[in-house]
Amino acid sequence: MAIIESIPNISEGRRPDVVRRIVDAVQAVPGVRVLDYSSDASHNRSVITLVGDAAAVQAGILALYEAAVPAIDLRTQCGEHPRVGAVDVVPFVPIEDVTMAECVTLAREVAAAVAARFGIPVFLYEEASDNPVRKNLEDIRRGEFEGLGAKLASEGWAPDFGPAAPHPSAGASVIGARMPLIAYNINLNTDRLDVARKIAAAIRHSSGGLRYVKAMGVKLDDRNLAQVSINLTNFQKTPVHRVFDMVTREAARYGVTVLESEVIGLIPSAALVGAAEHYLQLERFSPAQILENKLRGGQ
Amino acid sequence: MAIIESIPNISEGRRPDVVRRIVDAVQAVPGVRVLDYSSDASHNRSVITLVGDAAAVQAGILALYEAAVPAIDLRTQCGEHPRVGAVDVVPFVPIEDVTMAECVTLAREVAAAVAARFGIPVFLYEEASDNPVRKNLEDIRRGEFEGLGAKLASEGWAPDFGPAAPHPSAGASVIGARMPLIAYNINLNTDRLDVARKIAAAIRHSSGGLRYVKAMGVKLDDRNLAQVSINLTNFQKTPVHRVFDMVTREAARYGVTVLESEVIGLIPSAALVGAAEHYLQLERFSPAQILENKLRGGQ
Repeated sequence: MAIIESIPNISEGRRPDVVRRIVDAVQAVPGVRVLDYSSDASHNRSVITLVGDAAAVQAGILALYEAAVPAIDLRTQCGEHPRVGAVDVVPFVPIEDVTMAECVTLAREVAAAVAARFGIPVFLYEEASDNPVRKNLEDIRRGEFEGLGAKLASEGWAPDFGPAAPHPSAGASVIGARMPLIAYNINLNTDRLDVARKIAAAIRHSSGGLRYVKAMGVKLDDRNLAQVSINLTNFQKTPVHRVFDMVTREAARYGVTVLESEVIGLIPSAALVGAAEHYLQLERFSPAQILENKLRGGQ
Repeated sequence: MAIIESIPNISEGRRPDVVRRIVDAVQAVPGVRVLDYSSDASHNRSVITLVGDAAAVQAGILALYEAAVPAIDLRTQCGEHPRVGAVDVVPFVPIEDVTMAECVTLAREVAAAVAARFGIPVFLYEEASDNPVRKNLEDIRRGEFEGLGAKLASEGWAPDFGPAAPHPSAGASVIGARMPLIAYNINLNTDRLDVARKIAAAIRHSSGGLRYVKAMGVKLDDRNLAQVSINLTNFQKTPVHRVFDMVTREAARYGVTVLESEVIGLIPSAALVGAAEHYLQLERFSPAQILENKLRGGQ
Protein backbone atom coordinates (compact mmCIF):
# COMPACT_ATOMS: atom_id res chain seq x y z
CA MET A 1 0.00 0.00 0.00
CA ALA A 2 1.23 3.47 -0.88
CA ILE A 3 2.34 5.63 2.03
CA ILE A 4 2.53 9.40 1.63
CA GLU A 5 3.62 11.67 4.46
CA SER A 6 2.42 15.23 4.90
CA ILE A 7 3.84 17.74 7.37
CA PRO A 8 1.51 20.75 7.45
CA ASN A 9 2.82 23.81 9.31
CA ILE A 10 0.11 25.99 10.87
CA SER A 11 0.55 29.50 12.28
CA GLU A 12 -0.66 28.71 15.78
CA GLY A 13 1.64 27.54 18.58
CA ARG A 14 0.34 29.33 21.68
CA ARG A 15 -3.19 27.97 22.17
CA PRO A 16 -2.87 24.23 22.88
CA ASP A 17 -6.66 23.73 22.83
CA VAL A 18 -6.91 25.19 19.32
CA VAL A 19 -3.99 23.06 18.07
CA ARG A 20 -5.50 19.98 19.72
CA ARG A 21 -8.86 20.56 17.98
CA ILE A 22 -7.15 20.89 14.60
CA VAL A 23 -5.10 17.71 15.17
CA ASP A 24 -8.25 15.85 16.29
CA ALA A 25 -10.02 16.88 13.08
CA VAL A 26 -7.16 15.39 11.03
CA GLN A 27 -6.94 12.24 13.14
CA ALA A 28 -10.69 11.64 12.72
CA VAL A 29 -10.31 11.11 8.96
CA PRO A 30 -10.41 7.37 8.09
CA GLY A 31 -7.08 6.04 6.83
CA VAL A 32 -5.07 8.93 8.30
CA ARG A 33 -2.51 8.35 11.07
CA VAL A 34 -1.13 11.37 12.91
CA LEU A 35 2.41 10.28 13.83
CA ASP A 36 3.40 13.37 15.74
CA TYR A 37 2.70 17.03 16.36
CA SER A 38 4.58 19.74 18.20
CA SER A 39 4.05 23.43 18.94
CA ASP A 40 6.57 26.21 19.40
CA ALA A 41 5.26 29.19 21.38
CA SER A 42 7.98 31.67 20.40
CA HIS A 43 7.57 30.74 16.73
CA ASN A 44 3.77 30.65 17.29
CA ARG A 45 3.68 27.68 14.95
CA SER A 46 2.80 23.97 15.06
CA VAL A 47 4.02 21.12 12.88
CA ILE A 48 1.84 18.05 12.37
CA THR A 49 3.06 14.79 10.78
CA LEU A 50 0.47 12.52 9.19
CA VAL A 51 0.60 9.52 6.86
CA GLY A 52 -1.82 7.56 4.69
CA ASP A 53 -2.50 6.82 1.05
CA ALA A 54 -3.19 9.66 -1.40
CA ALA A 55 -6.95 9.76 -0.84
CA ALA A 56 -6.65 9.64 2.97
CA VAL A 57 -3.93 12.29 3.12
CA GLN A 58 -5.91 14.57 0.81
CA ALA A 59 -9.01 14.24 3.01
CA GLY A 60 -6.85 14.77 6.12
CA ILE A 61 -5.36 18.02 4.80
CA LEU A 62 -8.77 19.37 3.77
CA ALA A 63 -10.08 18.54 7.28
CA LEU A 64 -7.11 20.48 8.65
CA TYR A 65 -8.04 23.56 6.60
CA GLU A 66 -11.68 23.18 7.69
CA ALA A 67 -10.58 23.37 11.34
CA ALA A 68 -7.65 25.81 11.06
CA VAL A 69 -8.99 28.55 8.76
CA PRO A 70 -11.77 29.77 11.12
CA ALA A 71 -9.47 29.43 14.17
CA ILE A 72 -6.38 31.37 13.05
CA ASP A 73 -6.43 35.06 12.11
CA LEU A 74 -3.12 36.33 10.76
CA ARG A 75 -4.22 39.96 11.26
CA THR A 76 -3.60 39.47 14.96
CA GLN A 77 -1.20 36.50 14.96
CA CYS A 78 2.51 37.17 15.44
CA GLY A 79 5.56 35.08 16.18
CA GLU A 80 9.25 34.70 15.36
CA HIS A 81 8.71 32.38 12.40
CA PRO A 82 7.96 33.92 8.98
CA ARG A 83 4.49 32.95 7.66
CA VAL A 84 2.25 33.77 4.76
CA GLY A 85 -0.82 31.75 5.74
CA ALA A 86 -2.90 30.35 8.61
CA VAL A 87 -2.08 26.99 7.04
CA ASP A 88 1.36 28.14 5.97
CA VAL A 89 3.09 25.23 4.21
CA VAL A 90 1.87 21.76 3.21
CA PRO A 91 4.49 19.40 1.75
CA PHE A 92 3.70 15.89 0.48
CA VAL A 93 6.53 13.38 0.73
CA PRO A 94 6.77 9.95 -0.99
CA ILE A 95 7.55 7.26 1.60
CA GLU A 96 6.68 3.80 0.29
CA ASP A 97 5.31 2.34 -2.96
CA VAL A 98 4.63 5.80 -4.35
CA THR A 99 6.49 8.04 -6.78
CA MET A 100 7.36 11.72 -6.56
CA ALA A 101 5.13 12.24 -9.62
CA GLU A 102 2.15 10.92 -7.66
CA CYS A 103 2.94 13.33 -4.81
CA VAL A 104 3.11 16.20 -7.29
CA THR A 105 -0.32 15.21 -8.64
CA LEU A 106 -1.68 15.07 -5.09
CA ALA A 107 -0.22 18.51 -4.28
CA ARG A 108 -1.95 20.01 -7.32
CA GLU A 109 -5.28 18.37 -6.48
CA VAL A 110 -5.14 19.58 -2.88
CA ALA A 111 -4.10 23.08 -4.03
CA ALA A 112 -7.07 23.25 -6.41
CA ALA A 113 -9.47 22.06 -3.69
CA VAL A 114 -8.13 24.53 -1.10
CA ALA A 115 -8.50 27.43 -3.56
CA ALA A 116 -12.01 26.39 -4.59
CA ARG A 117 -13.38 25.53 -1.16
CA PHE A 118 -11.76 28.23 1.01
CA GLY A 119 -10.97 31.03 -1.47
CA ILE A 120 -7.29 30.93 -0.48
CA PRO A 121 -4.59 31.70 -3.06
CA VAL A 122 -2.10 28.81 -3.31
CA PHE A 123 1.51 28.80 -4.49
CA LEU A 124 3.00 25.47 -5.56
CA TYR A 125 6.60 24.85 -4.46
CA GLU A 126 9.55 22.47 -4.77
CA GLU A 127 8.83 19.50 -7.05
CA ALA A 128 5.19 20.55 -7.56
CA SER A 129 6.18 23.86 -9.18
CA ASP A 130 7.08 24.11 -12.86
CA ASN A 131 8.37 27.63 -12.38
CA PRO A 132 12.12 27.68 -11.63
CA VAL A 133 11.89 30.93 -9.63
CA ARG A 134 8.89 29.65 -7.63
CA LYS A 135 10.37 26.43 -6.23
CA ASN A 136 12.04 27.80 -3.12
CA LEU A 137 9.85 28.23 -0.03
CA GLU A 138 11.86 31.16 1.32
CA ASP A 139 11.41 33.13 -1.92
CA ILE A 140 7.65 32.50 -1.94
CA ARG A 141 7.26 33.47 1.70
CA ARG A 142 9.38 36.63 1.47
CA GLY A 143 7.26 39.67 2.51
CA GLU A 144 5.07 37.44 4.68
CA PHE A 145 1.34 37.90 5.28
CA GLU A 146 1.74 41.65 5.64
CA GLY A 147 3.28 42.01 2.14
CA LEU A 148 1.05 39.42 0.48
CA GLY A 149 -1.45 41.78 -1.17
CA ALA A 150 1.30 43.69 -2.96
CA LYS A 151 3.16 40.52 -3.86
CA LEU A 152 0.12 38.80 -5.40
CA ALA A 153 -0.51 41.91 -7.52
CA SER A 154 3.10 42.13 -8.75
CA GLU A 155 4.60 40.73 -11.96
CA GLY A 156 5.22 36.97 -11.82
CA TRP A 157 3.51 36.39 -8.51
CA ALA A 158 -0.03 35.44 -9.52
CA PRO A 159 -0.94 32.35 -7.48
CA ASP A 160 -1.03 28.87 -9.07
CA PHE A 161 -4.59 28.39 -7.83
CA GLY A 162 -7.22 30.70 -6.35
CA PRO A 163 -7.73 34.48 -6.27
CA ALA A 164 -4.88 36.97 -6.80
CA ALA A 165 -5.72 38.54 -3.44
CA PRO A 166 -5.06 37.30 0.11
CA HIS A 167 -7.76 35.57 2.12
CA PRO A 168 -8.57 38.26 4.74
CA SER A 169 -7.59 36.19 7.80
CA ALA A 170 -5.86 33.09 6.36
CA GLY A 171 -3.55 34.74 3.81
CA ALA A 172 -2.19 32.23 1.30
CA SER A 173 -0.80 28.68 1.37
CA VAL A 174 2.31 27.09 -0.08
CA ILE A 175 1.63 23.51 -1.14
CA GLY A 176 4.05 21.14 -2.80
CA ALA A 177 5.97 17.90 -2.94
CA ARG A 178 9.49 17.13 -1.78
CA MET A 179 11.78 14.31 -0.70
CA PRO A 180 11.99 13.44 3.00
CA LEU A 181 14.23 15.91 4.75
CA ILE A 182 16.99 14.64 7.02
CA ALA A 183 18.15 16.86 9.88
CA TYR A 184 21.72 15.81 10.57
CA ASN A 185 24.34 17.42 12.80
CA ILE A 186 28.08 16.80 12.91
CA ASN A 187 29.84 17.80 16.12
CA LEU A 188 33.50 18.79 15.85
CA ASN A 189 36.20 18.07 18.36
CA THR A 190 36.74 21.79 18.86
CA ASP A 191 35.03 24.86 20.32
CA ARG A 192 35.99 26.96 17.27
CA LEU A 193 32.75 28.30 15.79
CA ASP A 194 34.67 29.82 12.88
CA VAL A 195 35.75 26.33 11.76
CA ALA A 196 32.16 25.02 11.85
CA ARG A 197 31.04 28.05 9.85
CA LYS A 198 33.76 27.62 7.23
CA ILE A 199 32.89 23.93 6.84
CA ALA A 200 29.17 24.73 6.56
CA ALA A 201 29.96 27.26 3.83
CA ALA A 202 32.10 24.70 2.00
CA ILE A 203 29.45 21.96 1.92
CA ARG A 204 26.20 23.88 1.38
CA HIS A 205 24.65 24.44 -2.02
CA SER A 206 24.07 28.16 -1.61
CA SER A 207 27.78 28.92 -1.33
CA GLY A 208 29.14 26.39 -3.84
CA GLY A 209 28.80 23.02 -2.08
CA LEU A 210 26.65 19.98 -2.57
CA ARG A 211 23.32 20.37 -4.42
CA TYR A 212 20.93 19.16 -1.67
CA VAL A 213 22.70 20.48 1.44
CA LYS A 214 21.71 23.40 3.65
CA ALA A 215 24.16 23.99 6.50
CA MET A 216 25.24 26.44 9.15
CA GLY A 217 27.87 26.51 11.87
CA VAL A 218 26.60 26.81 15.44
CA LYS A 219 28.10 26.69 18.92
CA LEU A 220 26.81 24.17 21.50
CA ASP A 221 27.47 26.29 24.58
CA ASP A 222 26.53 23.59 27.09
CA ARG A 223 29.17 21.21 25.67
CA ASN A 224 31.63 23.84 24.44
CA LEU A 225 31.59 22.28 20.96
CA ALA A 226 31.22 23.66 17.46
CA GLN A 227 28.62 21.97 15.28
CA VAL A 228 27.88 21.81 11.56
CA SER A 229 24.07 21.75 11.51
CA ILE A 230 22.76 20.26 8.25
CA ASN A 231 19.49 19.79 6.39
CA LEU A 232 19.69 17.21 3.63
CA THR A 233 16.86 17.86 1.20
CA ASN A 234 17.41 14.86 -1.11
CA PHE A 235 19.38 12.01 0.44
CA GLN A 236 19.11 9.92 -2.73
CA LYS A 237 21.09 12.47 -4.73
CA THR A 238 23.29 13.86 -1.96
CA PRO A 239 23.78 10.93 0.43
CA VAL A 240 24.56 11.25 4.14
CA HIS A 241 27.89 9.46 3.83
CA ARG A 242 29.20 11.89 1.21
CA VAL A 243 28.35 14.83 3.46
CA PHE A 244 30.00 13.13 6.44
CA ASP A 245 33.19 12.39 4.48
CA MET A 246 33.32 15.93 3.12
CA VAL A 247 32.96 17.45 6.58
CA THR A 248 35.66 15.10 7.89
CA ARG A 249 38.03 16.15 5.10
CA GLU A 250 37.32 19.87 5.47
CA ALA A 251 37.79 19.63 9.25
CA ALA A 252 41.20 18.01 8.78
CA ARG A 253 42.31 21.11 6.88
CA TYR A 254 41.94 23.04 10.18
CA GLY A 255 43.50 20.27 12.27
CA VAL A 256 40.07 19.35 13.63
CA THR A 257 38.40 15.90 13.80
CA VAL A 258 34.78 14.81 13.82
CA LEU A 259 33.67 13.94 17.36
CA GLU A 260 30.29 12.42 16.45
CA SER A 261 27.21 12.94 14.32
CA GLU A 262 23.51 12.77 15.13
CA VAL A 263 20.20 12.43 13.38
CA ILE A 264 17.47 14.75 14.63
CA GLY A 265 14.03 13.20 14.31
CA LEU A 266 13.40 10.58 11.65
CA ILE A 267 15.58 9.16 8.89
CA PRO A 268 14.48 6.81 6.07
CA SER A 269 15.96 3.33 6.33
CA ALA A 270 17.34 3.70 2.79
CA ALA A 271 19.63 6.55 3.92
CA LEU A 272 21.30 4.33 6.55
CA VAL A 273 21.44 1.29 4.27
CA GLY A 274 23.04 3.53 1.63
CA ALA A 275 25.77 4.54 4.09
CA ALA A 276 26.42 0.88 4.99
CA GLU A 277 26.61 -0.05 1.29
CA HIS A 278 29.08 2.74 0.69
CA TYR A 279 31.52 2.07 3.53
CA LEU A 280 31.32 -1.73 3.23
CA GLN A 281 31.80 -1.41 -0.56
CA LEU A 282 28.74 -3.64 -1.02
CA GLU A 283 28.02 -4.69 -4.60
CA ARG A 284 25.04 -6.55 -6.08
CA PHE A 285 22.99 -5.67 -3.00
CA SER A 286 19.21 -5.38 -3.19
CA PRO A 287 16.76 -4.11 -0.53
CA ALA A 288 15.00 -7.48 -1.02
CA GLN A 289 17.96 -8.97 0.90
CA ILE A 290 17.01 -7.11 4.06
CA LEU A 291 15.35 -9.72 6.25
CA GLU A 292 12.62 -7.38 7.47
CA ASN A 293 11.62 -6.50 3.88
CA LYS A 294 11.38 -10.20 3.06
CA LEU A 295 9.22 -10.79 6.13
CA ARG A 296 6.85 -7.97 5.25
CA GLY A 297 6.70 -8.55 1.51
CA GLY A 298 4.87 -11.34 -0.26
CA GLN A 299 6.21 -14.90 -0.51
CA MET B 1 3.83 -9.77 17.16
CA ALA B 2 6.79 -12.05 17.79
CA ILE B 3 8.54 -13.41 14.71
CA ILE B 4 10.71 -16.52 14.98
CA GLU B 5 12.49 -17.98 11.98
CA SER B 6 13.30 -21.66 11.60
CA ILE B 7 15.53 -23.13 8.91
CA PRO B 8 15.12 -26.94 9.02
CA ASN B 9 17.63 -28.93 6.95
CA ILE B 10 16.30 -32.23 5.66
CA SER B 11 18.36 -35.06 4.12
CA GLU B 12 16.53 -35.14 0.79
CA GLY B 13 17.52 -33.08 -2.22
CA ARG B 14 17.02 -35.39 -5.19
CA ARG B 15 13.26 -36.09 -5.24
CA PRO B 16 11.48 -32.75 -5.88
CA ASP B 17 8.03 -34.30 -5.37
CA VAL B 18 8.99 -35.55 -1.89
CA VAL B 19 10.48 -32.17 -0.95
CA ARG B 20 7.42 -30.40 -2.31
CA ARG B 21 5.06 -32.57 -0.22
CA ILE B 22 7.07 -31.83 2.93
CA VAL B 23 7.07 -28.08 2.20
CA ASP B 24 3.33 -28.18 1.51
CA ALA B 25 2.72 -29.88 4.87
CA VAL B 26 4.58 -27.03 6.61
CA GLN B 27 2.88 -24.31 4.58
CA ALA B 28 -0.56 -25.74 5.44
CA VAL B 29 -0.09 -24.95 9.14
CA PRO B 30 -2.04 -21.79 10.12
CA GLY B 31 0.24 -18.88 11.05
CA VAL B 32 3.27 -20.33 9.25
CA ARG B 33 4.84 -18.61 6.24
CA VAL B 34 7.37 -20.53 4.16
CA LEU B 35 9.69 -17.78 2.87
CA ASP B 36 11.92 -19.96 0.77
CA TYR B 37 13.18 -23.47 0.14
CA SER B 38 15.96 -24.87 -1.98
CA SER B 39 17.35 -28.32 -2.73
CA ASP B 40 20.90 -29.40 -3.57
CA ALA B 41 21.13 -32.68 -5.44
CA SER B 42 24.83 -33.33 -4.86
CA HIS B 43 24.42 -32.60 -1.14
CA ASN B 44 21.11 -34.55 -1.24
CA ARG B 45 19.73 -31.97 1.13
CA SER B 46 17.03 -29.28 1.23
CA VAL B 47 16.82 -26.13 3.33
CA ILE B 48 13.43 -24.63 4.19
CA THR B 49 12.94 -21.17 5.70
CA LEU B 50 9.75 -20.52 7.63
CA VAL B 51 8.54 -17.81 10.02
CA GLY B 52 5.73 -17.34 12.51
CA ASP B 53 5.17 -16.91 16.21
CA ALA B 54 6.34 -19.61 18.65
CA ALA B 55 3.15 -21.69 18.52
CA ALA B 56 2.91 -21.58 14.73
CA VAL B 57 6.59 -22.40 14.17
CA GLN B 58 6.36 -25.31 16.64
CA ALA B 59 3.32 -26.73 14.81
CA GLY B 60 5.07 -26.16 11.48
CA ILE B 61 8.18 -28.10 12.52
CA LEU B 62 6.12 -30.99 13.90
CA ALA B 63 4.19 -31.10 10.60
CA LEU B 64 7.56 -31.25 8.83
CA TYR B 65 8.61 -34.30 10.91
CA GLU B 66 5.22 -35.92 10.25
CA ALA B 67 5.83 -35.65 6.51
CA ALA B 68 9.62 -36.17 6.38
CA VAL B 69 10.19 -39.12 8.75
CA PRO B 70 8.22 -41.70 6.69
CA ALA B 71 9.63 -40.33 3.41
CA ILE B 72 13.39 -40.30 4.11
CA ASP B 73 15.39 -43.43 4.96
CA LEU B 74 19.01 -42.74 5.88
CA ARG B 75 19.92 -46.41 5.42
CA THR B 76 19.78 -45.82 1.68
CA GLN B 77 20.25 -42.03 1.50
CA CYS B 78 23.67 -40.70 0.58
CA GLY B 79 25.07 -37.35 -0.48
CA GLU B 80 28.07 -35.07 -0.06
CA HIS B 81 26.74 -33.25 2.98
CA PRO B 82 27.29 -34.80 6.43
CA ARG B 83 24.01 -35.74 8.17
CA VAL B 84 22.87 -37.53 11.27
CA GLY B 85 19.09 -37.43 10.72
CA ALA B 86 16.31 -37.43 8.14
CA VAL B 87 15.40 -34.11 9.70
CA ASP B 88 19.03 -33.25 10.33
CA VAL B 89 19.17 -29.79 11.94
CA VAL B 90 16.43 -27.44 13.18
CA PRO B 91 17.57 -24.00 14.38
CA PHE B 92 15.22 -21.38 15.82
CA VAL B 93 16.27 -17.76 15.30
CA PRO B 94 14.87 -14.67 17.07
CA ILE B 95 13.84 -12.06 14.47
CA GLU B 96 11.44 -9.52 15.97
CA ASP B 97 9.89 -8.87 19.38
CA VAL B 98 11.26 -12.13 20.76
CA THR B 99 14.28 -12.98 22.91
CA MET B 100 16.92 -15.65 22.49
CA ALA B 101 15.66 -17.14 25.77
CA GLU B 102 12.22 -17.66 24.20
CA CYS B 103 13.82 -19.39 21.22
CA VAL B 104 15.75 -21.66 23.61
CA THR B 105 12.48 -22.56 25.35
CA LEU B 106 10.87 -23.28 21.99
CA ALA B 107 13.81 -25.49 20.93
CA ARG B 108 13.47 -27.55 24.12
CA GLU B 109 9.70 -27.92 23.71
CA VAL B 110 10.05 -29.02 20.09
CA ALA B 111 12.88 -31.42 21.02
CA ALA B 112 10.72 -33.04 23.73
CA ALA B 113 7.78 -33.37 21.33
CA VAL B 114 9.91 -34.87 18.54
CA ALA B 115 11.39 -37.44 20.94
CA ALA B 116 8.00 -38.36 22.40
CA ARG B 117 6.02 -38.46 19.18
CA PHE B 118 8.56 -39.99 16.77
CA GLY B 119 10.97 -41.87 19.08
CA ILE B 120 13.89 -39.89 17.66
CA PRO B 121 16.87 -39.02 19.88
CA VAL B 122 17.50 -35.28 19.93
CA PHE B 123 20.69 -33.32 20.68
CA LEU B 124 20.31 -29.68 21.66
CA TYR B 125 22.90 -27.32 20.14
CA GLU B 126 24.19 -23.75 20.18
CA GLU B 127 22.29 -21.49 22.61
CA ALA B 128 19.82 -24.27 23.50
CA SER B 129 22.56 -26.50 24.91
CA ASP B 130 23.86 -26.11 28.45
CA ASN B 131 26.75 -28.46 27.73
CA PRO B 132 29.85 -26.57 26.58
CA VAL B 133 31.13 -29.53 24.51
CA ARG B 134 27.72 -30.06 22.91
CA LYS B 135 27.13 -26.59 21.44
CA ASN B 136 28.90 -27.01 18.12
CA LEU B 137 26.93 -28.65 15.29
CA GLU B 138 30.01 -30.14 13.62
CA ASP B 139 31.00 -31.94 16.86
CA ILE B 140 27.51 -33.36 17.33
CA ARG B 141 27.29 -34.54 13.73
CA ARG B 142 30.76 -36.10 13.61
CA GLY B 143 30.45 -39.84 12.78
CA GLU B 144 27.17 -39.17 10.93
CA PHE B 145 24.20 -41.53 10.77
CA GLU B 146 26.46 -44.54 10.26
CA GLY B 147 28.33 -43.91 13.53
CA LEU B 148 25.29 -42.81 15.51
CA GLY B 149 24.57 -46.06 17.39
CA ALA B 150 28.11 -46.16 18.79
CA LYS B 151 28.12 -42.45 19.54
CA LEU B 152 24.81 -42.51 21.47
CA ALA B 153 26.13 -45.42 23.57
CA SER B 154 29.42 -43.68 24.37
CA GLU B 155 30.32 -41.60 27.43
CA GLY B 156 28.91 -38.06 27.30
CA TRP B 157 26.77 -38.59 24.20
CA ALA B 158 23.40 -39.59 25.67
CA PRO B 159 20.78 -37.52 23.84
CA ASP B 160 19.08 -34.55 25.52
CA PHE B 161 15.67 -36.04 24.70
CA GLY B 162 14.49 -39.46 23.49
CA PRO B 163 16.03 -42.93 23.38
CA ALA B 164 19.81 -43.54 23.51
CA ALA B 165 19.55 -45.43 20.23
CA PRO B 166 19.04 -44.17 16.66
CA HIS B 167 15.64 -44.18 15.02
CA PRO B 168 16.06 -47.00 12.43
CA SER B 169 15.47 -44.84 9.36
CA ALA B 170 15.47 -41.26 10.66
CA GLY B 171 18.57 -41.34 12.87
CA ALA B 172 18.69 -38.40 15.28
CA SER B 173 18.01 -34.66 15.13
CA VAL B 174 19.97 -31.62 16.24
CA ILE B 175 17.63 -28.88 17.48
CA GLY B 176 18.65 -25.54 18.90
CA ALA B 177 18.59 -21.75 18.89
CA ARG B 178 21.04 -19.32 17.36
CA MET B 179 21.38 -15.79 16.08
CA PRO B 180 20.67 -15.06 12.42
CA LEU B 181 23.68 -16.03 10.34
CA ILE B 182 25.08 -13.59 7.80
CA ALA B 183 26.90 -14.98 4.76
CA TYR B 184 29.28 -12.22 3.71
CA ASN B 185 32.09 -12.29 1.14
CA ILE B 186 34.90 -9.81 0.62
CA ASN B 187 36.56 -9.84 -2.80
CA LEU B 188 40.17 -8.73 -2.97
CA ASN B 189 41.81 -6.77 -5.75
CA THR B 190 44.15 -9.68 -6.42
CA ASP B 191 44.17 -13.23 -7.78
CA ARG B 192 46.41 -14.43 -4.92
CA LEU B 193 44.56 -17.20 -3.12
CA ASP B 194 47.32 -17.39 -0.49
CA VAL B 195 46.52 -13.81 0.60
CA ALA B 196 42.78 -14.62 0.95
CA ARG B 197 43.68 -17.71 2.99
CA LYS B 198 46.02 -15.81 5.29
CA ILE B 199 43.39 -13.13 5.88
CA ALA B 200 40.71 -15.76 6.55
CA ALA B 201 43.01 -17.41 9.10
CA ALA B 202 43.68 -14.04 10.75
CA ILE B 203 40.02 -13.11 11.22
CA ARG B 204 38.34 -16.43 12.06
CA HIS B 205 37.71 -17.60 15.59
CA SER B 206 39.13 -21.09 15.15
CA SER B 207 42.62 -19.80 14.42
CA GLY B 208 42.73 -16.86 16.83
CA GLY B 209 40.48 -14.24 15.24
CA LEU B 210 37.10 -12.75 16.06
CA ARG B 211 34.71 -14.75 18.26
CA TYR B 212 31.74 -15.10 15.84
CA VAL B 213 33.59 -15.38 12.53
CA LYS B 214 34.05 -18.45 10.34
CA ALA B 215 36.10 -17.76 7.21
CA MET B 216 38.02 -19.35 4.38
CA GLY B 217 39.95 -18.12 1.38
CA VAL B 218 38.64 -19.16 -2.02
CA LYS B 219 39.44 -18.38 -5.66
CA LEU B 220 36.76 -17.00 -8.00
CA ASP B 221 38.06 -18.57 -11.20
CA ASP B 222 35.56 -16.85 -13.50
CA ARG B 223 36.70 -13.41 -12.32
CA ASN B 224 40.29 -14.31 -11.44
CA LEU B 225 39.84 -12.88 -7.94
CA ALA B 226 40.66 -14.14 -4.47
CA GLN B 227 37.81 -13.99 -1.95
CA VAL B 228 37.53 -14.12 1.82
CA SER B 229 34.28 -16.06 2.33
CA ILE B 230 32.77 -15.38 5.74
CA ASN B 231 29.97 -16.63 7.98
CA LEU B 232 29.08 -14.23 10.77
CA THR B 233 27.30 -16.21 13.50
CA ASN B 234 26.46 -13.30 15.82
CA PHE B 235 26.44 -9.89 14.15
CA GLN B 236 25.47 -8.15 17.38
CA LYS B 237 28.70 -9.21 19.07
CA THR B 238 31.00 -9.32 16.03
CA PRO B 239 29.59 -6.65 13.69
CA VAL B 240 30.00 -6.65 9.90
CA HIS B 241 31.90 -3.37 9.88
CA ARG B 242 34.57 -4.66 12.26
CA VAL B 243 35.15 -7.68 10.04
CA PHE B 244 35.31 -5.46 6.95
CA ASP B 245 37.84 -3.10 8.54
CA MET B 246 39.96 -6.00 9.78
CA VAL B 247 40.07 -7.59 6.33
CA THR B 248 40.95 -4.21 4.78
CA ARG B 249 43.81 -3.76 7.27
CA GLU B 250 45.14 -7.31 6.87
CA ALA B 251 44.98 -7.00 3.05
CA ALA B 252 47.06 -3.80 3.19
CA ARG B 253 49.83 -5.78 4.85
CA TYR B 254 50.17 -7.72 1.56
CA GLY B 255 49.80 -4.62 -0.62
CA VAL B 256 46.26 -5.68 -1.54
CA THR B 257 43.04 -3.64 -1.42
CA VAL B 258 39.40 -4.62 -0.98
CA LEU B 259 37.62 -4.59 -4.35
CA GLU B 260 34.06 -5.05 -3.00
CA SER B 261 31.98 -7.03 -0.56
CA GLU B 262 28.69 -8.85 -0.94
CA VAL B 263 25.90 -10.23 1.20
CA ILE B 264 24.68 -13.69 0.18
CA GLY B 265 20.99 -14.17 0.95
CA LEU B 266 19.40 -12.19 3.73
CA ILE B 267 20.80 -9.73 6.28
CA PRO B 268 18.94 -8.24 9.27
CA SER B 269 18.35 -4.50 8.96
CA ALA B 270 20.11 -3.98 12.31
CA ALA B 271 23.40 -5.23 10.83
CA LEU B 272 23.35 -2.56 8.12
CA VAL B 273 22.12 0.17 10.45
CA GLY B 274 24.96 -0.79 12.83
CA ALA B 275 27.51 -0.30 10.03
CA ALA B 276 26.02 3.11 9.18
CA GLU B 277 26.12 4.12 12.87
CA HIS B 278 29.75 3.07 13.09
CA TYR B 279 31.11 4.83 10.02
CA LEU B 280 28.99 7.97 10.46
CA GLN B 281 29.99 8.07 14.17
CA LEU B 282 26.30 8.38 15.04
CA GLU B 283 25.54 9.00 18.71
CA ARG B 284 22.22 9.06 20.60
CA PHE B 285 20.61 7.14 17.73
CA SER B 286 17.60 4.90 18.32
CA PRO B 287 15.89 2.47 15.92
CA ALA B 288 12.70 4.42 16.72
CA GLN B 289 14.19 7.19 14.53
CA ILE B 290 14.00 5.01 11.43
CA LEU B 291 10.99 6.28 9.52
CA GLU B 292 9.77 2.80 8.55
CA ASN B 293 9.79 1.66 12.18
CA LYS B 294 7.75 4.69 13.15
CA LEU B 295 5.26 4.01 10.36
CA ARG B 296 4.83 0.38 11.40
CA GLY B 297 4.81 0.92 15.14
CA GLY B 298 1.93 2.34 17.17
CA GLN B 299 1.44 6.08 17.55
